[in-house]
Amino acid sequence: MTVFVRSGGRAADQLRPVRITRGYTIHAEGSVLIEFGQTRVLCTASVEEKVPPHKRGSGEGWVTAEYGMLPRATHTRSDREAARGKQSGRTQEIQRLIGRSMRAVFNLAALGERTIHLDCDVLQADGGTRTAAITGAFVAAQDAVNKLLAAGKIQATPILGHVAAISVGIVQGTPLLDLEYTEDSACDTDMNVVMTGAGHFVEVQGTAEGAAFSRDEMNQLLALAEKGIVELTALQTQALAA
Amino acid sequence: MTVFVRSGGRAADQLRPVRITRGYTIHAEGSVLIEFGQTRVLCTASVEEKVPPHKRGSGEGWVTAEYGMLPRATHTRSDREAARGKQSGRTQEIQRLIGRSMRAVFNLAALGERTIHLDCDVLQADGGTRTAAITGAFVAAQDAVNKLLAAGKIQATPILGHVAAISVGIVQGTPLLDLEYTEDSACDTDMNVVMTGAGHFVEVQGTAEGAAFSRDEMNQLLALAEKGIVELTALQTQALAA
Amino acid sequence: MTVFVRSGGRAADQLRPVRITRGYTIHAEGSVLIEFGQTRVLCTASVEEKVPPHKRGSGEGWVTAEYGMLPRATHTRSDREAARGKQSGRTQEIQRLIGRSMRAVFNLAALGERTIHLDCDVLQADGGTRTAAITGAFVAAQDAVNKLLAAGKIQATPILGHVAAISVGIVQGTPLLDLEYTEDSACDTDMNVVMTGAGHFVEVQGTAEGAAFSRDEMNQLLALAEKGIVELTALQTQALAA
Amino acid sequence: MTVFVRSGGRAADQLRPVRITRGYTIHAEGSVLIEFGQTRVLCTASVEEKVPPHKRGSGEGWVTAEYGMLPRATHTRSDREAARGKQSGRTQEIQRLIGRSMRAVFNLAALGERTIHLDCDVLQADGGTRTAAITGAFVAAQDAVNKLLAAGKIQATPILGHVAAISVGIVQGTPLLDLEYTEDSACDTDMNVVMTGAGHFVEVQGTAEGAAFSRDEMNQLLALAEKGIVELTALQTQALAA
Amino acid sequence: MTVFVRSGGRAADQLRPVRITRGYTIHAEGSVLIEFGQTRVLCTASVEEKVPPHKRGSGEGWVTAEYGMLPRATHTRSDREAARGKQSGRTQEIQRLIGRSMRAVFNLAALGERTIHLDCDVLQADGGTRTAAITGAFVAAQDAVNKLLAAGKIQATPILGHVAAISVGIVQGTPLLDLEYTEDSACDTDMNVVMTGAGHFVEVQGTAEGAAFSRDEMNQLLALAEKGIVELTALQTQALAA
Amino acid sequence: MTVFVRSGGRAADQLRPVRITRGYTIHAEGSVLIEFGQTRVLCTASVEEKVPPHKRGSGEGWVTAEYGMLPRATHTRSDREAARGKQSGRTQEIQRLIGRSMRAVFNLAALGERTIHLDCDVLQADGGTRTAAITGAFVAAQDAVNKLLAAGKIQATPILGHVAAISVGIVQGTPLLDLEYTEDSACDTDMNVVMTGAGHFVEVQGTAEGAAFSRDEMNQLLALAEKGIVELTALQTQALAA
Repeated sequence: MTVFVRSGGRAADQLRPVRITRGYTIHAEGSVLIEFGQTRVLCTASVEEKVPPHKRGSGEGWVTAEYGMLPRATHTRSDREAARGKQSGRTQEIQRLIGRSMRAVFNLAALGERTIHLDCDVLQADGGTRTAAITGAFVAAQDAVNKLLAAGKIQATPILGHVAAISVGIVQGTPLLDLEYTEDSACDTDMNVVMTGAGHFVEVQGTAEGAAFSRDEMNQLLALAEKGIVELTALQTQALAA
Repeated sequence: MTVFVRSGGRAADQLRPVRITRGYTIHAEGSVLIEFGQTRVLCTASVEEKVPPHKRGSGEGWVTAEYGMLPRATHTRSDREAARGKQSGRTQEIQRLIGRSMRAVFNLAALGERTIHLDCDVLQADGGTRTAAITGAFVAAQDAVNKLLAAGKIQATPILGHVAAISVGIVQGTPLLDLEYTEDSACDTDMNVVMTGAGHFVEVQGTAEGAAFSRDEMNQLLALAEKGIVELTALQTQALAA
Repeated sequence: MTVFVRSGGRAADQLRPVRITRGYTIHAEGSVLIEFGQTRVLCTASVEEKVPPHKRGSGEGWVTAEYGMLPRATHTRSDREAARGKQSGRTQEIQRLIGRSMRAVFNLAALGERTIHLDCDVLQADGGTRTAAITGAFVAAQDAVNKLLAAGKIQATPILGHVAAISVGIVQGTPLLDLEYTEDSACDTDMNVVMTGAGHFVEVQGTAEGAAFSRDEMNQLLALAEKGIVELTALQTQALAA
Repeated sequence: MTVFVRSGGRAADQLRPVRITRGYTIHAEGSVLIEFGQTRVLCTASVEEKVPPHKRGSGEGWVTAEYGMLPRATHTRSDREAARGKQSGRTQEIQRLIGRSMRAVFNLAALGERTIHLDCDVLQADGGTRTAAITGAFVAAQDAVNKLLAAGKIQATPILGHVAAISVGIVQGTPLLDLEYTEDSACDTDMNVVMTGAGHFVEVQGTAEGAAFSRDEMNQLLALAEKGIVELTALQTQALAA
Repeated sequence: MTVFVRSGGRAADQLRPVRITRGYTIHAEGSVLIEFGQTRVLCTASVEEKVPPHKRGSGEGWVTAEYGMLPRATHTRSDREAARGKQSGRTQEIQRLIGRSMRAVFNLAALGERTIHLDCDVLQADGGTRTAAITGAFVAAQDAVNKLLAAGKIQATPILGHVAAISVGIVQGTPLLDLEYTEDSACDTDMNVVMTGAGHFVEVQGTAEGAAFSRDEMNQLLALAEKGIVELTALQTQALAA
Repeated sequence: MTVFVRSGGRAADQLRPVRITRGYTIHAEGSVLIEFGQTRVLCTASVEEKVPPHKRGSGEGWVTAEYGMLPRATHTRSDREAARGKQSGRTQEIQRLIGRSMRAVFNLAALGERTIHLDCDVLQADGGTRTAAITGAFVAAQDAVNKLLAAGKIQATPILGHVAAISVGIVQGTPLLDLEYTEDSACDTDMNVVMTGAGHFVEVQGTAEGAAFSRDEMNQLLALAEKGIVELTALQTQALAA
């Protein structure tokens, strides 16, 4: 079987170069630019001292996310969602995924009645924007939590552990880690995997774009994802230590 | 370990009673009421002799889905989306899932430049509305395709095989097949699995509602789902033969 | 003058077969499937223990209605209002009519500060959906009120009497009771009449689709409507006694 | 029985002073300010040389109406519909009524493939705005048609006869013609009647605001309406002759 | 250099005839029809005894404006913003300008916690609708304030002085005061100037429609505007004294 | 008179450090990050080979702009416009200003029937976002035009000269060039000035936030703006030569 050759000679199980820049903008409590190769997402964490209606009076906080793409983050310009007057189904799906992923590692009671808003805005897209967003949002959230701790607003961290995400897929029969745009467009199966630092699954979303996939292929993809998440978690730790 | 006891003494790997009623309403080219226990979804297939802009002139057809829930399909009344002026993120996510699932078993070129609209409206909800919708929509689509064949509008079926869906989840440590509402609300992990009649995966969407899940738990859930899909596919075949 | 011949040999002053099925779905306080021939409308009554702003603190309750049509309830598929992002003028007109009709037989003070929401969703349309909706919503509202009485939440019924509705029209010179779709499309004059069980008018909405109508024609139509309402009221009573 | 005493000593069967001012604004093909007492509505007719999609290629024209109320036309300021982002159900109901009423006296084939837009904007409201709108819109439409005839764009008038509208109601047991705001707020039964110059009915919309009304009361109201329409038709004729 | 000849022999530095009619409608606390030649704007001031969220509990009031144009106020009919479901950018820009202009002469603390809504609706447009709106809104606001003073709701006027507005522009090289529509369409530079009665600037908005303009041209335009504002202020005083 | 002391010892007539980074993102035909001190705006120019309806068949092109602010570009998080479902009046005002400013230096006939979309997205805000956006958008547009020239799609540049913008204002009696956020919040008068490279005015928008301003103050502000624009134009030239 011919194996798919990746750009820049990247190995099938190799992440693109990942860069995590903290303090990328000055106003937010956490502000992280995360790059997975050419994909660049700005993740900010904003702390608000109130909670949405369904949490009022519960003693618990809330963690939520919004996602956006600049109109020319992509190869051809797409419409500005604010101008069209609504967010696409894709946008809503992604921001719901980011929110659930972040809440999976948050003890909302320990956060107290406040909200952390994670805004993930794609400055440049080349595949994997949602996985970069989750991975970067975790770092931004950690920075915001550190500010709350330093300010004495909370006594113990509400963060239970790391969370990170990566895409995997099968392109021309080859299972690949961390798909870039051209690979994503060509793939038969595309899976986004969100995992904790402890190696458990938070979300698994696999889609057969072309032919349906077998249990065996799924297992190969999950193994690739596990490898990638271990590396991303280490990069988060490294960035937070800097 | 104590095992979770299901209502009506249902076994952990047992589907609820499934009923598929074809020809439930008179106008649509396909009209199926599907019941998974107390969950009831009306799935209609409407054939339109034109395609959306991105398919015009391509020689290919399109298959798309919309999903809705009657305001009092649920335990407490929810707002009518038409009155609120927009579909929720959840609704959009589900209808995109149904659409992708159906297209996975359609040869769009063989359909010709026409659209099949699948409308899945929940009359009564008790968990598993999206999986019932996919399973029923397949039968409605098959009926619509049969009408096209009978009318000589297409010469060969564009349907490549069955598609069906089921939910699985872990409740109090027990992996369960086909969650009803009370189980769904209580579960730690919830997974929706869409598979072809040939036993391959079309979509896998697993979410840790509480604690993250292990690879081993995932494997147990996928095995349960495979069992359920085999049974659902048989029920589809039986209904279509009636 | 040639008299218009109706499908199935129905007499000019004859209702279609009317079926009223209570308890059609399980969650709502009242849930009625009403059928006028091929027209099928699901009417649910939901009790909410609060009132809209204009009634807060008044000691009075509120009764309101919403109306919807499944996309393929009709001969050709119509757009889903939730997807288009707004309800049509026709939908709003009908749901306002249902709401006013129901309030005409409600003592809002006796209801207490709570709201009854009547959701009328057309599963299948063949003319007369608004009149079926009103006739069925009354039965659903009665069931919900009975639950409130049984629960001791109210001591006396707030319902002052029956309300029912029927369409009448002139087709090719013949005045007809209870128009089905093909008759409705062909008629010169179309009138919807809402009456109480005591034989008084709640709403009369007559429209000349073709030629304007005379006082004499109006009188014939009103007489037909009165006959139909007497029968519908008896059917409501019978259904509620079952 | 005590008879209700009207402001200014108006008789029960007497219209308020009606003033019809043609050419009220300069740009529109027809522009009429109509006053029913303190109610003032500006009705403009605009001719557009194209038709909506459902009439394209039919050889027929279209006549349509829109209705609006300035925010402070009323006793207390109401929200601006353009700012709220949608028209109320009441607004839509009224503009649909005006449109149907006007089309009842139009031969759309004789109009040719063009549209007459009737904009009815309430500058000051004191009851009866929809009936004033219909009565004034007819005069504006006639002026626009006269311009089309004068320009040779059409050879014969597409207008089949007059159309006018009036409200009637029962206040404290007394049937009244042409309700002003305080009467409208107090009335038990409220009916809007649209008739042709030939004395036939185009629309009858009667609503019991309080107690349901009898056939006998309805007959009294229709007789009052007929009297009012005769007078309004004469006033239209007079205005058009000026 | 040839000088541009204005319609009706108007001088380059001459205002169109200005008419200010107070009490134009009966319900509003202030109601002014202002005419700049053929441009006619109805300005109403409505007092509401509450303030928007950002002023609650501040002890200060609020002054705000909304602007609208009847669909056939213009040469050709434009879409109704309420029907389209949103206000255009132009409309929002103008109503924000009117609001800021009015607040420039209001002591919000002296107004107390209440809101004055200024609704400026264009009945007929021939250039300069926003400047007429500001000039008329001031008179309407003054009438509303006088009612508050007369009712003893405030002890001293919150109005600090007059505010009025005028357009100026350069057409074919000639600087002109108070542009009418045909001049506005043809102009190279268009400037709207809002000034206080004391001769200071509140807003200056100059736009080069064709060639950019020089400092010298700007000075000529500002001088023209100052002349116009002096006259408008005198006309406001005169109208308020009537 | 005490003179206002600026942060970092900046002189009253001194710009903040301006940085113009071309090629900031990879997909757009022009992509410029412009920084005025802490204000950072990403300006992309996208070429589309079609024009909006009002230019179709005219042989002319179109240049248009959209503006957005990331939710946490500001000190406190603001709502995401895409999520709220509409752009604010401020956003629309700014994007209309950018569009007009760019068109002022474009020969649309020379551009041919294509559109240049300028997207100006604020990554970090500290006052002057609209002036930075205009100044940066010019550079992005120039890059896009250069690509069109290089590709032989146009033979001669449609750009007539530079355009740049700067804010000026009076803070505590001191006229200042290029206001940062704290100055902007405190200023009495705020003016945005858009000028061509040739030293002429394209737009002047002055607003009295507190007291109205005199002719003399206006002159001082315009002189400051002229100085700033000369410097910005030189910086644009320098960036384009790099």
